[in-house]
Amino acid sequence: MTSKNRIRLKVGVIGLGRLGKVYVRDLASRIPETTVVAVADTDAALASTIAQEFDVPKAYGSPAELINDRHVDAVVVVSPTHTHRDIVIAAAQAKKPTFCEKPPALSLAECAAMSDAVETSGTFFQMGFMRRFDPGYAAAKEKISQGAIGKPVVFKSTSRDPFRPSLEYANPASSGGIMVDMGIHDFDLARWFMGDVDTVQAAGAVLAYPEMASIGDIDNAIATLVFADGRLGVIDLTRNGVYGYDISTELLGDAGTIRVGYLRETPLYVMTKNTVAHDTVPYFMERFERAYTLQLRNFAQNILHDRVPPVVIKDGMEALRIALAATAAHQTGQPVKVSSIQ
Amino acid sequence: MTSKNRIRLKVGVIGLGRLGKVYVRDLASRIPETTVVAVADTDAALASTIAQEFDVPKAYGSPAELINDRHVDAVVVVSPTHTHRDIVIAAAQAKKPTFCEKPPALSLAECAAMSDAVETSGTFFQMGFMRRFDPGYAAAKEKISQGAIGKPVVFKSTSRDPFRPSLEYANPASSGGIMVDMGIHDFDLARWFMGDVDTVQAAGAVLAYPEMASIGDIDNAIATLVFADGRLGVIDLTRNGVYGYDISTELLGDAGTIRVGYLRETPLYVMTKNTVAHDTVPYFMERFERAYTLQLRNFAQNILHDRVPPVVIKDGMEALRIALAATAAHQTGQPVKVSSIQ
Amino acid sequence: MTSKNRIRLKVGVIGLGRLGKVYVRDLASRIPETTVVAVADTDAALASTIAQEFDVPKAYGSPAELINDRHVDAVVVVSPTHTHRDIVIAAAQAKKPTFCEKPPALSLAECAAMSDAVETSGTFFQMGFMRRFDPGYAAAKEKISQGAIGKPVVFKSTSRDPFRPSLEYANPASSGGIMVDMGIHDFDLARWFMGDVDTVQAAGAVLAYPEMASIGDIDNAIATLVFADGRLGVIDLTRNGVYGYDISTELLGDAGTIRVGYLRETPLYVMTKNTVAHDTVPYFMERFERAYTLQLRNFAQNILHDRVPPVVIKDGMEALRIALAATAAHQTGQPVKVSSIQ
Amino acid sequence: MTSKNRIRLKVGVIGLGRLGKVYVRDLASRIPETTVVAVADTDAALASTIAQEFDVPKAYGSPAELINDRHVDAVVVVSPTHTHRDIVIAAAQAKKPTFCEKPPALSLAECAAMSDAVETSGTFFQMGFMRRFDPGYAAAKEKISQGAIGKPVVFKSTSRDPFRPSLEYANPASSGGIMVDMGIHDFDLARWFMGDVDTVQAAGAVLAYPEMASIGDIDNAIATLVFADGRLGVIDLTRNGVYGYDISTELLGDAGTIRVGYLRETPLYVMTKNTVAHDTVPYFMERFERAYTLQLRNFAQNILHDRVPPVVIKDGMEALRIALAATAAHQTGQPVKVSSIQ
Repeated sequence: MTSKNRIRLKVGVIGLGRLGKVYVRDLASRIPETTVVAVADTDAALASTIAQEFDVPKAYGSPAELINDRHVDAVVVVSPTHTHRDIVIAAAQAKKPTFCEKPPALSLAECAAMSDAVETSGTFFQMGFMRRFDPGYAAAKEKISQGAIGKPVVFKSTSRDPFRPSLEYANPASSGGIMVDMGIHDFDLARWFMGDVDTVQAAGAVLAYPEMASIGDIDNAIATLVFADGRLGVIDLTRNGVYGYDISTELLGDAGTIRVGYLRETPLYVMTKNTVAHDTVPYFMERFERAYTLQLRNFAQNILHDRVPPVVIKDGMEALRIALAATAAHQTGQPVKVSSIQ
Repeated sequence: MTSKNRIRLKVGVIGLGRLGKVYVRDLASRIPETTVVAVADTDAALASTIAQEFDVPKAYGSPAELINDRHVDAVVVVSPTHTHRDIVIAAAQAKKPTFCEKPPALSLAECAAMSDAVETSGTFFQMGFMRRFDPGYAAAKEKISQGAIGKPVVFKSTSRDPFRPSLEYANPASSGGIMVDMGIHDFDLARWFMGDVDTVQAAGAVLAYPEMASIGDIDNAIATLVFADGRLGVIDLTRNGVYGYDISTELLGDAGTIRVGYLRETPLYVMTKNTVAHDTVPYFMERFERAYTLQLRNFAQNILHDRVPPVVIKDGMEALRIALAATAAHQTGQPVKVSSIQ
Repeated sequence: MTSKNRIRLKVGVIGLGRLGKVYVRDLASRIPETTVVAVADTDAALASTIAQEFDVPKAYGSPAELINDRHVDAVVVVSPTHTHRDIVIAAAQAKKPTFCEKPPALSLAECAAMSDAVETSGTFFQMGFMRRFDPGYAAAKEKISQGAIGKPVVFKSTSRDPFRPSLEYANPASSGGIMVDMGIHDFDLARWFMGDVDTVQAAGAVLAYPEMASIGDIDNAIATLVFADGRLGVIDLTRNGVYGYDISTELLGDAGTIRVGYLRETPLYVMTKNTVAHDTVPYFMERFERAYTLQLRNFAQNILHDRVPPVVIKDGMEALRIALAATAAHQTGQPVKVSSIQ
Repeated sequence: MTSKNRIRLKVGVIGLGRLGKVYVRDLASRIPETTVVAVADTDAALASTIAQEFDVPKAYGSPAELINDRHVDAVVVVSPTHTHRDIVIAAAQAKKPTFCEKPPALSLAECAAMSDAVETSGTFFQMGFMRRFDPGYAAAKEKISQGAIGKPVVFKSTSRDPFRPSLEYANPASSGGIMVDMGIHDFDLARWFMGDVDTVQAAGAVLAYPEMASIGDIDNAIATLVFADGRLGVIDLTRNGVYGYDISTELLGDAGTIRVGYLRETPLYVMTKNTVAHDTVPYFMERFERAYTLQLRNFAQNILHDRVPPVVIKDGMEALRIALAATAAHQTGQPVKVSSIQ
């Protein structure tokens, strides 16, 4: 809790779906360095409703209006992925510092266009990968830099959704498919902890929800990573983690190992005849609520204190490149050089 | 997140110490049903600073001014315990719905005076015992009512502070001593889960911090409860839980058992040669942050929806009575009938 | 696994109930330093059967015959408690090194008679308290002596049976009642870790099995210990730990805490919709199988290497004295000085 | 513990290294259905020593002598892998029921020769894969057959040694390399839980012990399995699990998941400032001691009760084939059809 006389960053939020609404709430009430001065959604009525709910002065029916609002100091983009490119480019051209939710885009070409615009304009741009701000992942990073496990040599990461998303949501045309939609977080962690990836092997299948075949995607996947320096990684993804939302990552070093993740939601054990039981984490908002807030606060502080962004568009682009390589590896049954994906 | 057109409860907060400031933050930004329209502290400068920080229109140097502010719909009392009586009575006489942090007072006579004033005025009054709103304790209560462990027969509860409080804070003259200051939460849980207590046995000693003797208090205590219906309970309290803030409670039934509590703070395990390690919960705000928010929101909703308060002054008074009985039992070395404490 | 040319201790086992049979098996096949040369039980047919099963040369229908068998180097007594006195005295008089299962007897007078006979004869005598040989308890002892938790200040111990024993077994006339039958292990641990006990407070009740009242015993008990140096302890006992056999002990120090115990039996987690579950330890043999073997091996090695016994009859006698004090404290509702129990 | 009059299986044990000695001890003293009547090792002095230690009547300096001893009912082969073929064939020709430790051999040709001899002779033959007899793995198998997790769709398994074996031991010429030496257990589990494997992808590297390169092996490996029916599996192996011996396996189903494994060795937690710590399982004997005993007992019971062996030479051969495919996949960087390995 900080002093009021500090200048607050006036933020505009574009995209007011479930996550967008959480971002508005955080920026409006949980982050002392920010206020929300405008919201925008192509559903203008939704924008008005959200604006009213959170005392936001302006509600727009288009991103452009918000970007061009001179009271908006900075833009948070949490609209559908296919809209990111145009919004980010417009914000960059308007010299508005921007935060963009992952993934940056569904194609590397779009990413490149965004990156060019950002670089040309010299505007601050921060990519969203909230796991990096989770206290567990952040602590892991720090412990490793302190040498707690010696040199990390194998990266393992598991992402499990507790149920199948709607076929509309999961459609690879908009989601990018399981490797992009789910895996991009793990691929970003892989790069963050271990560096660039040279080659990807992958396998995947429709194993739990036969209807996934109708949209051309799979529900389970495994990807093996060979990093540029020869170290190893493996990622497994599933849509049928029906017991709970389970995100776990391990860094195996030559002097120890670090594991990030947890499964217990309520601090309660129930013990009955020959059984000890506890509940699980339901979904991503319960798991990463704090990470989302910390991430947006970091964005605001970086702008206010003229710091460089810790996650940039290249990070999103390279994570996407690995995800696309994994997709190709799965589809061809052959290892794929990440650098071959352009 | 709720609609803005709902009427918000206009709350005034009295007492702006550490917890008071958290309450202001929650009421101002995390609870959709409330706004904070006034704050008061005998340190008027502090009141002004807090008001400015959280956009609170009014800052007062005395409780009376806040209570009598006609814009204040409801009062939250989080000032030092010895001030509760007068403030609660004044609020009751002013017909302002009131929330009062535990303990209600340090003597049963004060509690009785508060209770009389509240009853006479017919004003809404809710006692603060945040553990009842912790998702773990709330889930335990519900599981038990569903019969998950059969009939609960033994209540066990442990409260451990990670370090010695200042001698000034711990002084029994203001804190009530360890049985009141720490134990009142456990005694309230005992009543909530099991009902009235008939007899208390207790033992205690200065075992970790010799300087506690100088203020006439102990740093470790054990109290055994015999409930009115013959069931059993045991509580242990310590100021030297140096490994972390450890609050745990068990309800042993005739068909199972339930345990509430957790010790892991960051979702991380570090494993090195022959060791697996994780961190612990640092202190009460990390453990009960959500419970505090849920409790205040419940208070607001109860007023807005004309519900009876789930925790009343009698609850605070009876928990205090058990704590005083435990204190007497420790001091005399003899079992004490709770009803003998008047 | 040790060399065969080492001289093996020739042991006779008296008492061939469930535990006796396990002791025969351990001494016959799991402990390299021993062989079993005789078994005895008042049920001579049982003795014959066991002898045949484990290749034991001699089977007797009375303890005296076994004690006086000149091939028997050492005697292990695992017969019913009420027979301990006469057997131990006879073995002492015959100068046979003896191991006696806990409790030594049901009265202090019997213990004193046994102790006198042992001392007078100068014969080796080792008291059985297997928990001291459990790797968990042994490690706790060592960690504490290394200063891992600073000075231990509070001792907590819980013993839970997963079901009610037969009324015949539980009858206080033969079992000594819950404080003796179950509690003696915890009272011995209390002395082992913390030293002599000055005063005991206790409460108990029939809460799960009404039929316990018919034999004059209770099924749940809590005992608070004040050690001679003012430190504190608390023990809770239950017959209705229906979820599993749960033995746990904590030593809270002024610089940390140590917990001994575990509940998982099979190395397996089963996770289904919103639940993570594992099984529990069924009963004492699963929990302490290794401790029993280590204890008997220690007995044999102490004799073979002329070492003093780590647990002596006084240990059994003093643990019994605390148990009797706890029984009296429960029955009178008053604190009881342990030294007053004679 | 069983009756003595039951006929005991008279077993001869060939190979008296560390595991061989454990097998002798188990067969001699822990398995009621067996006695050891002969031991053999090419180190005849070692054979004599072991025989003396465990009261075994005969000690031989060659496998042939033991096999041809007419008092030997059944043969347990735990000699170096390269000797398995000749011993197993000789035992089969002598019509002696045989147990052979994994791996069956280092080449499929040897396996085929062994298999042919066993089939031709019609002699009982049981392959050793002790994990199948571990209570955790056995319970997992049963839970799955009961439908606890629905249909298993992904198999994950991790094997970690706590330190690098000697270069002599690890040399692929005798160990088969990491995929065979460590992975064969996981590949066998994969087949046991999921069925035949169609394709293997793999990656591996020297990451922790540069000297591994000198023997032509790697210290870390990842293998992805595509089962014949399209389901998926992934295995990771490391020699640098320096925190402890860590074997864990998961079966992810479409209605839940099952995890087998544990890391805690001593039932003890030590909690100091902001840390909770416990120890880990040191090595395979601590982890699988019981499984080894249960496996040998099962072998004896199968012979005594004329049951078919639950694990046969084909199981060893097919697990080896997957391991060889994984080795080839790692070496070529290409997916390998398991059926292409002949």
